[in-house]
Amino acid sequence: MTAYDVDNIFAKILRGDIPAYKVYEDDDVLAFMDVMPQSDGHTLILPKTPARNILDVEPDVLAKVIKVTQKIAKAAVKAFEADGAVIMQYNEAPAGQTVFHLHFHVVPRYLGVPLRPHTGKMADAALLTAHAEKLKAALAA
Amino acid sequence: MTAYDVDNIFAKILRGDIPAYKVYEDDDVLAFMDVMPQSDGHTLILPKTPARNILDVEPDVLAKVIKVTQKIAKAAVKAFEADGAVIMQYNEAPAGQTVFHLHFHVVPRYLGVPLRPHTGKMADAALLTAHAEKLKAALAA
Repeated sequence: MTAYDVDNIFAKILRGDIPAYKVYEDDDVLAFMDVMPQSDGHTLILPKTPARNILDVEPDVLAKVIKVTQKIAKAAVKAFEADGAVIMQYNEAPAGQTVFHLHFHVVPRYLGVPLRPHTGKMADAALLTAHAEKLKAALAA
Repeated sequence: MTAYDVDNIFAKILRGDIPAYKVYEDDDVLAFMDVMPQSDGHTLILPKTPARNILDVEPDVLAKVIKVTQKIAKAAVKAFEADGAVIMQYNEAPAGQTVFHLHFHVVPRYLGVPLRPHTGKMADAALLTAHAEKLKAALAA
């Protein structure tokens, strides 16, 4: 497997070189809004330590990430009054991975509302900020 | 959220009431081949304790399940010479959940090969048996 690229965009977010709509952070895990959300509340959860994907991450780190993924899924369903949520995690480019730092997607689903395609266009900043605040409030509740 | 249904198909598999193409089992977790695989090597991983989905599972149980999911993903990529793998986990019907016992999908991906749609038709039993054997061998290696 290809080595970890220290200049991937999530590594830059973790270093604070570029901003993110953060919703949760602890010693091991960071979560922020996906800037090209497939549905309202689409959030990404990643370990702070370098890992390309599930094929190379330390099992104990993975366990910490999935526990936060659960917290986010529960809070997102509540905050956005969703009817469910999909958890997705892609490993290697042929499987759809585009950023090579392990991350889980939490994608809230709404009855009768199809997922938005990845257009490559970023969502409105004010909307992402509002969604991040909504999710943070639900996580704190 | 709706209560756990003790008669869901995975509960029946866990009780031994119906068979499955098992590939891995420990005190807490069971893994078997998806009988309607979206790609060669498509495997399901679930906790032995009742949990409807990620919204109600005990965090420590979830951690055990994701660690086995990782084992399966690594072994499946090796066994089936896949170019990657997708991990998917659906919560509630509007999000695509059809069996209401928490489970993770490991779906190996192959360059240029689209996922097979869910046709509702079961794969050939001999093929599923062969794939289970292949995956078990990779897990034991």
